[in-house]
Amino acid sequence: MAFSPLVRELMEALRCLPGVGPKSAQRMTFQLLQRDRGGARRLAEALAAAADGVGECRECRTLTEEPVCAICASPRRERSLLCIVENPADVSAVEEATDYGGLYFVLKGRLSPLDGIGPAELGLDALESRFAGGEVREIILATNPTVEGEATAQYVAEMARARGIVVSRIAHGVPVGGDLEYVDSGTLSHAFAGRREYR
Amino acid sequence: MAFSPLVRELMEALRCLPGVGPKSAQRMTFQLLQRDRGGARRLAEALAAAADGVGECRECRTLTEEPVCAICASPRRERSLLCIVENPADVSAVEEATDYGGLYFVLKGRLSPLDGIGPAELGLDALESRFAGGEVREIILATNPTVEGEATAQYVAEMARARGIVVSRIAHGVPVGGDLEYVDSGTLSHAFAGRREYR
Repeated sequence: MAFSPLVRELMEALRCLPGVGPKSAQRMTFQLLQRDRGGARRLAEALAAAADGVGECRECRTLTEEPVCAICASPRRERSLLCIVENPADVSAVEEATDYGGLYFVLKGRLSPLDGIGPAELGLDALESRFAGGEVREIILATNPTVEGEATAQYVAEMARARGIVVSRIAHGVPVGGDLEYVDSGTLSHAFAGRREYR
Repeated sequence: MAFSPLVRELMEALRCLPGVGPKSAQRMTFQLLQRDRGGARRLAEALAAAADGVGECRECRTLTEEPVCAICASPRRERSLLCIVENPADVSAVEEATDYGGLYFVLKGRLSPLDGIGPAELGLDALESRFAGGEVREIILATNPTVEGEATAQYVAEMARARGIVVSRIAHGVPVGGDLEYVDSGTLSHAFAGRREYR
């Protein structure tokens, strides 16, 4: 009874954000209503516009309000090279960290039969017909180094090899600036198995 | 360039929430757009409704969309007793933790001359005329135990005493379940100065 219905409704609605519990929702509500109503209105508009307007790129499946995203539409990207990632956020991570100049394909998940996520949910039929089109000559597998991510990478790799496409996987090992002592054993064993000649 | 304008706009708008940096804003954006568009639309509506509809109670200044909040309007609350708090969240904290049955007055801040927050900004003129009305016979000062909160409590206490109103301040000391060893020295010195006869 300490809060009015509109205030309570806002606190509950904020809980849909990841990592926001009752206390943070309360803090956010008071911050917005007491100090930043302009921010609240702008956020309301951005949420409504994005929820209604954003779909997926018909080529790479990333989030975009255009039929084809800016990367897929760019004439400056190498169209024979395709990087396979799990999520739209991974596209942004690769773009920021590397000078990769090819295209992407966003799976929006990873193979996980127990959760009902199979090849169809990841758009692998679309990827298959793209491979069949003959434009793609090389793929880089950048799925996460988890059990499901590895299985997904294997699956896509076999699809690609059947078409004679060159397949590589991004390197996994000790992070740059990391400390051997604090690296988990899975990563360290990966790093040993994947060691390279030192020149 | 990795994100489309609507997606980028949503990420930026989410930054108005307290404690949300670029990474959390990105995570929230993808969570909402990939898994919870219903939640995003509901949040958009709640934000717009609250930003436009919520004002302040004309008696206690808490956040509410009614002219008078539910507590001030309740016939079951003791109208001669007034608890002075800094924020609407404090009302909720007191309501949840105690069986306090009086009314509240929400300062929406504390005296802080350097930030330009004086008696007028805290609605102390309204409080003064309420004291003058004669209905209030006792006040409980529940401002925070900070330098500004103490100064505010002093100021309000003098206003009340000038009208012959009984004034008390909530107790400050070692938190229940707390450990002397880990309590800060300010709290411990407060706890010693405020010690009571043990019966």
